[in-house]
Amino acid sequence: MIGTDLNPALTPVAFLLGTWRGEGEGQFPTIRPFRYREEIRFTHNGKAFLIYTQRTEAIDSGQPMHGEAGYLRLVGDGRVEFVIAQPIGFAEISLGRVDGMRIDVECASVGRTPTAKPVTSISRSLWLDDETLRYELKMGMEGAPLAQHLRASFHRSD
Amino acid sequence: MIGTDLNPALTPVAFLLGTWRGEGEGQFPTIRPFRYREEIRFTHNGKAFLIYTQRTEAIDSGQPMHGEAGYLRLVGDGRVEFVIAQPIGFAEISLGRVDGMRIDVECASVGRTPTAKPVTSISRSLWLDDETLRYELKMGMEGAPLAQHLRASFHRSD
Repeated sequence: MIGTDLNPALTPVAFLLGTWRGEGEGQFPTIRPFRYREEIRFTHNGKAFLIYTQRTEAIDSGQPMHGEAGYLRLVGDGRVEFVIAQPIGFAEISLGRVDGMRIDVECASVGRTPTAKPVTSISRSLWLDDETLRYELKMGMEGAPLAQHLRASFHRSD
Repeated sequence: MIGTDLNPALTPVAFLLGTWRGEGEGQFPTIRPFRYREEIRFTHNGKAFLIYTQRTEAIDSGQPMHGEAGYLRLVGDGRVEFVIAQPIGFAEISLGRVDGMRIDVECASVGRTPTAKPVTSISRSLWLDDETLRYELKMGMEGAPLAQHLRASFHRSD
């Protein structure tokens, strides 16, 4: 895709393009806190969406932990639609806005496979803080309201 | 991920691993038939799912057309769960089975963003026919029942 011009609709989120590496920490009322190493990539193919992939691994062993893949659609007036597949059996539709160097989205729907954990809602914030990319993710499950789950920070690696 | 052992749960779908290139044809009652070039990749990271990415492009110009990303989960007794994000604003949960060198799944749910087309159902079949990988995809939309949409064939390229 090198050489493909950026779709003008993507200008507000061009700050995300590239590969980002960093570390994060996870928590939830039902689990023991944990840390992870993470890589996030945002690429494009000339259309009005960013292509998003992410993977995390254990800091000590390098063992794969989580991964996600999806698309961040820019649909006008700062509105964004984030469509994400998760290998733990979720298909997430999140909606929100880009405002300056910050994106906030909340789940409009979470599709779940029969064997997936009962996640009911996710909210995500992603922002550029000087040259550091940061995100926070809150999660709610059946019987457990939306609560802080993940927080990570990144530096651009290409 | 090179060197990571295949999760034993993936043995029934190991025939999909690798990069596949081919061509396909699309149709639907509401559109003009079209052809496309396609690349599909199935990889793994040692866990009990395949990592799936796909992209199509115009045969003449090489312009990107469609893309998808997701995960094919093997959940026991030949059952599969296919979680797929599509940049046209869909998040698909499809369920089915692997039987020999053939996988059939049907949508259990389709999450849609507010700006997505009103797709209501998708069924997918994917099978290895000698050394040719083939798929067929049927689609239903509001006001248009499930009908033949995409058909393609591939050879392994790595």
